[in-house]
Amino acid sequence: MKKLIHTLLAGSLLTTCLATTSAVNAMTVSPQNWWAGMQNSSLQIMLHETEIAKQQWYLESYPGVELKSITKTDNANYAFINLEISPNAKPGKLLFKNRAGDQFEYPLLTRDKQSAERQGFDSGDTIYLINPDRFANGDSSNDTVQGMAEAASPSERGGRHGGDIQGIINALPYLDELGVTQLWLTPPLENNMASYSYHGYAITDFYNIDPRMGSNELYHELSAKAKQHGIGLVMDLVLNHFGSEHEWMKDKPTTDWINFNGDFADGKHATSHARQTIQDPHASEFDKRQFSDGWFVSTMPDLNQRQPLLATYLIQNAIWWIEYADLSGIRVDTYSYSDKAFLADWTKAIMVEYPNFNIVGEEWTSNPAIASYWQAGKINNDGYTSSLPSVMDFSLQESLIQALNEDESWNTGWVKVYESLANDFLYPNPDNLLVFADNHDMSRVYTELKQDLAKTKMAMTMLLTTRGIAQMYYGTEVLLDNTGSNDHGDIRIDFPGGFAGQKTNAFTGQGLNSDQVDMQQTITTLLNFRKNSPAIAKGKLTHFSPKQGVYSYARISEQQTVLVFLNKNTTAKTWSLDYMREVLGNHKSATALFNKQKVKLTKPLTLPAMSALVLVIE
Amino acid sequence: MKKLIHTLLAGSLLTTCLATTSAVNAMTVSPQNWWAGMQNSSLQIMLHETEIAKQQWYLESYPGVELKSITKTDNANYAFINLEISPNAKPGKLLFKNRAGDQFEYPLLTRDKQSAERQGFDSGDTIYLINPDRFANGDSSNDTVQGMAEAASPSERGGRHGGDIQGIINALPYLDELGVTQLWLTPPLENNMASYSYHGYAITDFYNIDPRMGSNELYHELSAKAKQHGIGLVMDLVLNHFGSEHEWMKDKPTTDWINFNGDFADGKHATSHARQTIQDPHASEFDKRQFSDGWFVSTMPDLNQRQPLLATYLIQNAIWWIEYADLSGIRVDTYSYSDKAFLADWTKAIMVEYPNFNIVGEEWTSNPAIASYWQAGKINNDGYTSSLPSVMDFSLQESLIQALNEDESWNTGWVKVYESLANDFLYPNPDNLLVFADNHDMSRVYTELKQDLAKTKMAMTMLLTTRGIAQMYYGTEVLLDNTGSNDHGDIRIDFPGGFAGQKTNAFTGQGLNSDQVDMQQTITTLLNFRKNSPAIAKGKLTHFSPKQGVYSYARISEQQTVLVFLNKNTTAKTWSLDYMREVLGNHKSATALFNKQKVKLTKPLTLPAMSALVLVIE
Repeated sequence: MKKLIHTLLAGSLLTTCLATTSAVNAMTVSPQNWWAGMQNSSLQIMLHETEIAKQQWYLESYPGVELKSITKTDNANYAFINLEISPNAKPGKLLFKNRAGDQFEYPLLTRDKQSAERQGFDSGDTIYLINPDRFANGDSSNDTVQGMAEAASPSERGGRHGGDIQGIINALPYLDELGVTQLWLTPPLENNMASYSYHGYAITDFYNIDPRMGSNELYHELSAKAKQHGIGLVMDLVLNHFGSEHEWMKDKPTTDWINFNGDFADGKHATSHARQTIQDPHASEFDKRQFSDGWFVSTMPDLNQRQPLLATYLIQNAIWWIEYADLSGIRVDTYSYSDKAFLADWTKAIMVEYPNFNIVGEEWTSNPAIASYWQAGKINNDGYTSSLPSVMDFSLQESLIQALNEDESWNTGWVKVYESLANDFLYPNPDNLLVFADNHDMSRVYTELKQDLAKTKMAMTMLLTTRGIAQMYYGTEVLLDNTGSNDHGDIRIDFPGGFAGQKTNAFTGQGLNSDQVDMQQTITTLLNFRKNSPAIAKGKLTHFSPKQGVYSYARISEQQTVLVFLNKNTTAKTWSLDYMREVLGNHKSATALFNKQKVKLTKPLTLPAMSALVLVIE
Repeated sequence: MKKLIHTLLAGSLLTTCLATTSAVNAMTVSPQNWWAGMQNSSLQIMLHETEIAKQQWYLESYPGVELKSITKTDNANYAFINLEISPNAKPGKLLFKNRAGDQFEYPLLTRDKQSAERQGFDSGDTIYLINPDRFANGDSSNDTVQGMAEAASPSERGGRHGGDIQGIINALPYLDELGVTQLWLTPPLENNMASYSYHGYAITDFYNIDPRMGSNELYHELSAKAKQHGIGLVMDLVLNHFGSEHEWMKDKPTTDWINFNGDFADGKHATSHARQTIQDPHASEFDKRQFSDGWFVSTMPDLNQRQPLLATYLIQNAIWWIEYADLSGIRVDTYSYSDKAFLADWTKAIMVEYPNFNIVGEEWTSNPAIASYWQAGKINNDGYTSSLPSVMDFSLQESLIQALNEDESWNTGWVKVYESLANDFLYPNPDNLLVFADNHDMSRVYTELKQDLAKTKMAMTMLLTTRGIAQMYYGTEVLLDNTGSNDHGDIRIDFPGGFAGQKTNAFTGQGLNSDQVDMQQTITTLLNFRKNSPAIAKGKLTHFSPKQGVYSYARISEQQTVLVFLNKNTTAKTWSLDYMREVLGNHKSATALFNKQKVKLTKPLTLPAMSALVLVIE
């Protein structure tokens, strides 16, 4: 939002300027600008200032733009201007005036060419997930910022460590070389909370980057520079809740803006996390409300997206960031916790504006029946239709860790992965699922696999060669580890090389042990192969029932076949390919990905103990 | 099938009679008769005799019946007569002749009025599951039958114990009083196997009751007498496999009658049990075949239902038994192991003939996405459509046992049941699921609940009051127990009172201990309430998120509301009903089912420790 110092000089033009401090007489305008030539011709501009609703705003004549109405609420400090912007309206500056002689300019910007056709992340991508506060400190001058409640405190695990957008910009050559093609940053938006604000999910300003991370301009620069490396930018948006220090808590736009009347009631109004109440035909209304309207925690009030002014606000906010920062995708936090009708509207509005875009929703469930409910194209019994292209595959994540930790039997070990993928029949588009071994909210894969390098390599090889969009958590390539603590602050450990005073540096390789070097090389090989492999990006997956501790599958495109053998045994296996005839066709030989050796397919393979063999047939 | 002694007296009528012994020159005719006035006007009659295909059969003129063709196979010992029976053909005897002067009569019987409209079992029913060999020996003269390979051996746990259909007929007054409304017998068809034949799933004659169980006539009598008690009869059919001593193994009707060329190959052609290969979009053809075509065990060859003559044989066999024995339902063994296109045809053929009938398929999976795939009305992504009305709810069975054995937490205990039922959104018709605490293939509920009477009562109260068709395994009412052994023979323990020399008798109550008496009374109360409760039979289920170890729900029909509270705590709970307002309406009081006391709903209830409270509002 744009905050305007509101100087009442009768008869003269109002001076407008951006300000980051809050002033009693400052008007905030959200969004701070818009673009000419959007698909949706409607625009809602929220004005917030003491008794703003008592003023009569009008729009100075502007070809193609019409002020249709002004919506007032039960709070006189808010007014919502409803504009109609015709497709042929030209970029320029709108001028709003009121009868008291106040006025403000409103920019209508030029869209980037190709903006509407932008390509979202897809199954050819690898998304690198970063907690910006914990990745790299590229600008120590913004570690502590005056006016922001929480100062840097790098030694505290729940404190701010100083990582920022400049740090990520500096790391782009490293990420490019690693083979990353998309960046997902946990929310870099303002979180002006008293404490524990580094994670970014308690947003206090939906339209501005937190100054301790950088600025809107620097975020835009990250996007542009990443693009030069062939790397897209995915924004993490929160629709369900916001930070309790947001001005909306002090001055609610409407009485129904926040669920449970804006009252956490000492936990009585906490969410139940019972996500299945959304689908359950037997769920009580009591439980449905407790899940959807309940708050995450007392510092994260729950938004009532049934409120149409708020719904429009959130839709426009997403579109604003896509346009402003040239995003290649959105990740939605706590997806199903928001009102489901709103989610359908929100996803549809974005996908109508950007038909090739991608959005992935976080639905933390290992039940694929529930996760698949949300994917675009799903035919649900209750008639619910969604436009959400992608969902996270928590089932595969859980199964993969189990598979590698359990002994093999008819119902343990690799069969867990096999059965998890078998559930793909529930999804209208399994290729558009996000696959991952861990993320910022769960213990790291290397930790969960008991610091076993071989297993971690198998896990990542599997994830990076199966169907879906791959996501890797920062530092997995150098075996970051939270053994001994599941605290989020320890999971989101400082990336080596990103901060002053560290002994190891993953960017330069300095101080890495041999396991870390091995892992970094393995990941580099896999990610760079993935970048250019049509079989991995678009090939059909055909997998085989695990036997004798070996799980095997093929990815087949017109140009390429990739075979993967994951041998969990502590001994090598001599492995006949007879059972694989249907995927081998007439091919007689292949090349091993990791050691580049030629392999004959006409005789049994040797599968080394505890390892992944990836064969490429071209 | 009908076996005909084939006496070649040239120029005279062939003498036909039923025979149970196999003769070299005996022709079998399957089915042995048909009915006039069936919906489907086609009939296929299988003839089996040495070189029968070389004979030219014709039909003596019969109004409304036409011999369309005779299908011959690659085995000259079989011929298939294809008849067209017009809707106005009258009952009577068809006469088939051949040029050699042989002939046989073929009865076209009169259907029972209402046969087509027969009502299948439904959610108002309780199905009592019996292993006939283990329930009651009503006729000791058939314990061992000459000509049948296996003799009685009551002391062996895998042997035949002598239970039979007469024993069940004798028990009908007991079952009626208990409140049972349907009987499901494990297959009573001939299993003339060398050993381990008591269970009935290795069928050697699809058209005749095993003589050690009784006869076709006695089975018919059971059905008729049960009906007088308001009890329906459900037949257990096996479509997937048959007994290796069936004449088809010695003389295959076609070379493709049995999967994997009729060869078990020392287990190489055993089924993988990987049922998910049916749905899995990534499954290899190799694995699909291994599951569907693989054999259960060497003594149960796998039928190839893609063979159209066999498919028709199996369809007609089911319809024959429905008509002959006046069935109220079918239970299908190992449902998904048969060819899926055939299953669609088989279920459709039966449901077209009997639109109000019911068929329940055994799909042993705790994954409701897979189970629901098979239910009629399900819209599957792969376009598969089924006419199977009912599926077994293994997920609820598993969850119920877990719920009662686990401590309560956010993801253990009652939440398992709550989440299992939440998955009902996957089913087109959750009310038509079969719910059960155990069955003949799994450890008994009392055993699984560690011989805890209170838990077993809670389990059965839950099952008998939630949505679905209830199924109870014989002897649960007197706490039959297999503690110490999961052997099927011990699970299928002799029912007390059914066999000579037992100390206790559940029919008379003699020798039952107090826990058994308590359980029997509880079940009698629940089953008889269930019989007449519109809320249980048809009411909407609304359940509430478990809290503090209590799971609660309501069943609501227009006439009645039933409230159920399951308190797993070892102490009583004072329980406010505030959260239940949406199901209580304006009701102020209710009657407790078990002790008939009036209970006020306007103040907190007392939920006794470790018990189920069922309140009825009328």
